[in-house]
Amino acid sequence: MPLVMLQRLPVRRRREGTSDDSIKLRCLSCNAEYAAADDSGTCRDCCVKMKEKKESLKNKVEELKFKLSFLKLPSPVLYPFSTDIILLPIDDSSASPIPAHKAILVSRSPVFKVMLENDTIESRSGTIKIPDVSYDTLCAFVNYLYTAEASLDDDQTVCNLLALGEKYQVKQLKINCEQHLVAKINWDKSIEHYAFAYQYNCKSLLQASLDVIMDNMPRFTQHDYYPVLMGTNPQLVVDIYDSYLLKKIKSGDAP
Amino acid sequence: MPLVMLQRLPVRRRREGTSDDSIKLRCLSCNAEYAAADDSGTCRDCCVKMKEKKESLKNKVEELKFKLSFLKLPSPVLYPFSTDIILLPIDDSSASPIPAHKAILVSRSPVFKVMLENDTIESRSGTIKIPDVSYDTLCAFVNYLYTAEASLDDDQTVCNLLALGEKYQVKQLKINCEQHLVAKINWDKSIEHYAFAYQYNCKSLLQASLDVIMDNMPRFTQHDYYPVLMGTNPQLVVDIYDSYLLKKIKSGDAP
Repeated sequence: MPLVMLQRLPVRRRREGTSDDSIKLRCLSCNAEYAAADDSGTCRDCCVKMKEKKESLKNKVEELKFKLSFLKLPSPVLYPFSTDIILLPIDDSSASPIPAHKAILVSRSPVFKVMLENDTIESRSGTIKIPDVSYDTLCAFVNYLYTAEASLDDDQTVCNLLALGEKYQVKQLKINCEQHLVAKINWDKSIEHYAFAYQYNCKSLLQASLDVIMDNMPRFTQHDYYPVLMGTNPQLVVDIYDSYLLKKIKSGDAP
Repeated sequence: MPLVMLQRLPVRRRREGTSDDSIKLRCLSCNAEYAAADDSGTCRDCCVKMKEKKESLKNKVEELKFKLSFLKLPSPVLYPFSTDIILLPIDDSSASPIPAHKAILVSRSPVFKVMLENDTIESRSGTIKIPDVSYDTLCAFVNYLYTAEASLDDDQTVCNLLALGEKYQVKQLKINCEQHLVAKINWDKSIEHYAFAYQYNCKSLLQASLDVIMDNMPRFTQHDYYPVLMGTNPQLVVDIYDSYLLKKIKSGDAP
């Protein structure tokens, strides 16, 4: 599916007794022949400009990659040189402390900034205790803070990282995770993700989940997660019904 | 001057009694009419693909910019939070010490890495004394280490930063500076930049400078910098003459 939809605009001026369908031109990009009448694309100037623009964008990508590789830092889990703070996943009994640098944490998260620049328990003790997170998730979080990269392999990891992104206001991480979840939304995940999106203030995911639920309303109450949502947050079930009714009214389908 | 040179390939099949020069098509990019015969560019498929590619590259640029803005760190000169090392430009009497973070320095420069990971005067004292550099240049250098950006406003600053890039093996900085100097090379700068390129092992700049000198050999000895080079490094003058002679022999111009 092309990203850019192109309109066919036949401006050819057919002349009496002439069939210009048979006129062939050679494409300046792929070098193949094409029928002028039916398969023409751009004029010569636009072809040149598009090629120039493509080259310029390619160069820009290379330049940015170059800068990015320079700015990435090694994860302090693997290379704890000169670390001055410890992150501790307190609910993971098997977890080791994760070393880090205050300077990096404060530059990535306004929450860490306030915490570490002021006279707090964390800044005095040099330890930040983090509840409700496993050692592996916290490592992935710290790794993101140092590299701007995360392995978003499974939904659970993505949700855990998004939750940390929301808690510590690491906007970029939250956006990355949310985009990932939106791209993979489907009926099976829709209700659970709707509740998750509501909890962590993810507008795009909330809308994407709601759209999928709306498209499957006849089987809403049969969804495995429906009774869970009714038990944990019945207000959200009501919100979904409200949205459904509103949609029906707008479309003129409601009685 | 277009980045990509396009060949005109007239594959049109002219038929008896038909002038297809007057056939007009509409460009799918700029929407203007063009003469099929003379101004055709791409076929429809290539037009769509090029637009898709352009969109994809634009998205990539945005994604990389997004990551880059996340990874940039504030200059420790302006925000010295949690710094643990000092850089001192010892030949600048008016200079203040410049605070920095060991973790950043070692990640950017293999020279700082060896210096700070081992039992050296610098790692013990927490101070790195840097000779032959002004406070401003050192600030610009440190700023680059934190942001991957430098204001390359004047040649002197660029040369100073390149020298630091070479000394501390900050490859990206050296490459940036060298590209900048190569792009702005001219006859006035050529001999001085040739000597500079030789001193700091800059192959591209050495070749670019030599090319300009070769093109201006009749006035080589009249150049303002010629006597300076003769005084400081006469071997380089000999090298230039050797290159000139070799070029003449290769082109068959030498007697």
